[in-house]
Amino acid sequence: MMNNLTPLEPKADKATVRRHNLSLVLRAVHDAGEATRAGVATHVGLTRAAVSSLVEQLLEYGFVSEWGKTSSGQAGRPGTVLKVSRSGPAGLGVEVNIDYIAVCVVDLAGTDRVRLVEHIDNRGVQPSEALARAARLAARALGSAAEQDLAPAGAHIALPGLVTGGTVRQAPNLGWQRVAVEGLFAQALLALRPAHRPLPVSSDNEANAAALAELWFGAGTEGVRSFLYLTGEIGIGGALVLGGELLRGAHGFAGEIGHMVVDPEGPLCRCGAHGCLEQYAGQAALLTAAGIDADAGGAQGVAELGRRARRGEPSVLSAIERAGRQLGVVVSGAVNLFDPEAVMLGGVYRELMDWLAPAVDRELARRVVSGLWSEDGKRLRAASSLGDAARGAAGVIVREVLADPAAYAERDAG
Amino acid sequence: MMNNLTPLEPKADKATVRRHNLSLVLRAVHDAGEATRAGVATHVGLTRAAVSSLVEQLLEYGFVSEWGKTSSGQAGRPGTVLKVSRSGPAGLGVEVNIDYIAVCVVDLAGTDRVRLVEHIDNRGVQPSEALARAARLAARALGSAAEQDLAPAGAHIALPGLVTGGTVRQAPNLGWQRVAVEGLFAQALLALRPAHRPLPVSSDNEANAAALAELWFGAGTEGVRSFLYLTGEIGIGGALVLGGELLRGAHGFAGEIGHMVVDPEGPLCRCGAHGCLEQYAGQAALLTAAGIDADAGGAQGVAELGRRARRGEPSVLSAIERAGRQLGVVVSGAVNLFDPEAVMLGGVYRELMDWLAPAVDRELARRVVSGLWSEDGKRLRAASSLGDAARGAAGVIVREVLADPAAYAERDAG
Repeated sequence: MMNNLTPLEPKADKATVRRHNLSLVLRAVHDAGEATRAGVATHVGLTRAAVSSLVEQLLEYGFVSEWGKTSSGQAGRPGTVLKVSRSGPAGLGVEVNIDYIAVCVVDLAGTDRVRLVEHIDNRGVQPSEALARAARLAARALGSAAEQDLAPAGAHIALPGLVTGGTVRQAPNLGWQRVAVEGLFAQALLALRPAHRPLPVSSDNEANAAALAELWFGAGTEGVRSFLYLTGEIGIGGALVLGGELLRGAHGFAGEIGHMVVDPEGPLCRCGAHGCLEQYAGQAALLTAAGIDADAGGAQGVAELGRRARRGEPSVLSAIERAGRQLGVVVSGAVNLFDPEAVMLGGVYRELMDWLAPAVDRELARRVVSGLWSEDGKRLRAASSLGDAARGAAGVIVREVLADPAAYAERDAG
Repeated sequence: MMNNLTPLEPKADKATVRRHNLSLVLRAVHDAGEATRAGVATHVGLTRAAVSSLVEQLLEYGFVSEWGKTSSGQAGRPGTVLKVSRSGPAGLGVEVNIDYIAVCVVDLAGTDRVRLVEHIDNRGVQPSEALARAARLAARALGSAAEQDLAPAGAHIALPGLVTGGTVRQAPNLGWQRVAVEGLFAQALLALRPAHRPLPVSSDNEANAAALAELWFGAGTEGVRSFLYLTGEIGIGGALVLGGELLRGAHGFAGEIGHMVVDPEGPLCRCGAHGCLEQYAGQAALLTAAGIDADAGGAQGVAELGRRARRGEPSVLSAIERAGRQLGVVVSGAVNLFDPEAVMLGGVYRELMDWLAPAVDRELARRVVSGLWSEDGKRLRAASSLGDAARGAAGVIVREVLADPAAYAERDAG
C-alpha cells in the first residue's frame, strides 16, 4: 500500500546504473528464453541504443550468445536472436542430507548439467568428515563441469537443520549442533583443489533450497507463486513461498512444519518435545508403522514400502493412510495460517502420493476454513521431480550471477 | 536477492514524480514527528528547493503546519518546524465484532480523536441491520470529527471473518455468509447523511486490522517488525506481520490460527471441523470451562473471569492454565512455521495474561525448535491497549492519505 521511501530522482552514479541495467537485460533474455535487442528494449523500458551497448558487454563477458536471425514473421527488420550462454557462469549446489549427499551443477539457463548422488548414512558421522565427503563429490562435479566449459561462481550447501550465518545451529536428525558448515566445506574443497581459486560458499536449510527449486524449475514455471513445501525425509522439512519469495522469518528459521504437534502427549521427538509430526509421518515412523525395518537404509526401505503398497498389502496401506490423516491435520493448520495456492509434497511423499494424497486431501477439504480446498483437489501436488535441494542450491548461485553479472565478470578477470 | 525489473531511468512524467515526492515529503514529516525543510531534504535525498516547493503545496492543502523556529542548538540557520496537521484529513475505522461495535477517528499524526463503543450482541442479527447500527455509530463519530475540523478520507470496516473484495465470504461466529459489507454500510451511512459526499468504504478481517494497529501504534513503534497476533474474542482471530508487512496469503485468508487443530477428535467447531483451537481457548470455551455462563454477555463474563482469577479460585485458575497449555501448543507450531520475533495476545487474553502467559511460555520454551523462545520470556507479550481493530482500520485510511495526498486534496476540492 505504502510506497517505499525512494525519490524518483535517481542519484546513483553512471557505473551503478549501468551495472543494474546489465543485470536487467541479462534477466530479460534469461526469462524470455530467447529475445532480440528490440524485444528486450521494449520489455525493460530502455532505449534500443542503451540495450545494444549492454548486450555488447554481455556478449564480451560470455553471458549471452547470438543465435542467427528471427524469422520474417515479426514486425520490422529481423533481429539477431539472443540466448543466455550454455557455457561459462554456473552454480554448484550441494545437499548434505541424512542418508545421501547430492551435488548439482546448473547453467545460466537453468539446465542441470552435472548431477552426482551418493547414498550414505551421515548419522553419527563427524560433521567435518561428512562435509569432506561432500567436498569430494563436489570436486568430481567441478571436474565434469570444466569439461563442459562451465565455471560455477560459487557453491551453496543445503542441510536438514536450522542454518544461519554459515552455521548449522542444530540438525537434530544428523545430531549436529553449531557446525560452521561453510568454513569446513570450503577448507575441504580447497585441500582437494589447491591450484584453483577458492569458491565462495553459502548455505541454507534443505527444504528452503528444495522449495526454491520448485519455484524456479518446477511448479513456479507453471505460475504457482505461493505454496507450502514439505519434504518427507528422515525428518520432515518445510518451506513457505509466498508471491514468489521464500519466507525466511525473523531469524531465518521459518518452515519447521515437522515439529508442529499432532498430540502433545505423543512420542518423544529428536527435538526434545513430544508428539511432533515427524514422529507420525516422517520416513522412519512410516516404515516402522508398515512393519519395515527403518534402520535398514532409507532408500531401500522406501522402495520396499512402495512395492508393498502397490501390491495392496492392507497393513501397509492403513499405515500410509494413518500418516496421511495426521499429515493432513497439520497441513490444514498451516494452510489456515498461510493461505497458499498449493501444497507440494516432496521427498519420500512423492513416491507414496497415490495412497497418501486422498487422506491428506480429505482433511484439507474438511478443515480449511476458506472452503477453497474442497472446491478442487488440484491444490495438493507431488513436488516436481526436478525440485530437489541440490538443484535449488545451484539455482541460488545462478540467481546471484544474474543479479549482478558485472561482479562475476570482474572476479573472473581478477 | 534479485532486484526488481525497474530500470534506473525513470520515464515517469513530471506530474507523477511530483505526486510521488509530495507523499515522500509528507511521510518524512509524519515519521519524524517534527522536521525542518532542510532535515526533510537530507532524509529523502531531494534538493532543498524541491522540498520547499513540495512543502508549500502541503501547507496549502492543509496536510502540514508550521510551528515556529528550531532552537539554535542545530547547525546552520534555524529552520521552521513542520508537523503534520491535527485537523483536516483523517481516517474512520469501524469494527463490527460479535458482541460489540467500535468506531474510531484517527488524525494524520495517528492520534485517536474520536472513539465510540457499543456493546451489543450481533449474533443472529441480520447483516444489513448490524451494518446499519455500525453506520449510526459512524455517523455520530463523523459528527464529533467535524466539530474537531477533521474530515475522514474514507471508512475501513474490520470484521471477524474471511473478507475479500468488499465481501465477507464467511464469518462463522456471526453466522454470516457472502455479505457485501462495504455496499451495505455505504448505503446505510448515505441514508443517514444525505447531504454529505459519500465516503469510500473498504474492509478487512478484524485480526488483520488489530495487528496493523499494533504495528503502527503499538509494539511496531518499539521496533517489533515481525509478530504473530492473536485476538481472543468469541472466536480466535490471528494475523501475521513479517518485516513490517501484513501477510495476506494467496487469497487474502491468511492468519486463521483459531482453526488450527488441538485434537482431531475434539468438539465440533462453528467452521464445521472438529477440535479447532477456538473450542479450547476461545472466550466461550474459557468461560464454560471456568463455570461462567458464556451466553450472559461477553464483556461481563470476561470481567467475572478476571475477578475470580484474581481471587485465586482453583477451578478458574486451572481452566485458564489448561487453555493456556492448548494455546501454547498451537502457537508453538505457528512459531516453528513462521519464526516471528514476538507473539502478541490481544482481546480477552490481555485481561488474563498473568495466568495465561506462564502456560503458553512453557510450551513455547519446550516446543520451538530454534530454542530462541527459551532464552528469554519477553517474546510473548500482551497486545498494546492501543492495538484494537477499529484504530487499525482508521490507520489504513490515514496510510492511504499519506501515500497519495494529492488524490485526497483533488477529491476534497472536486
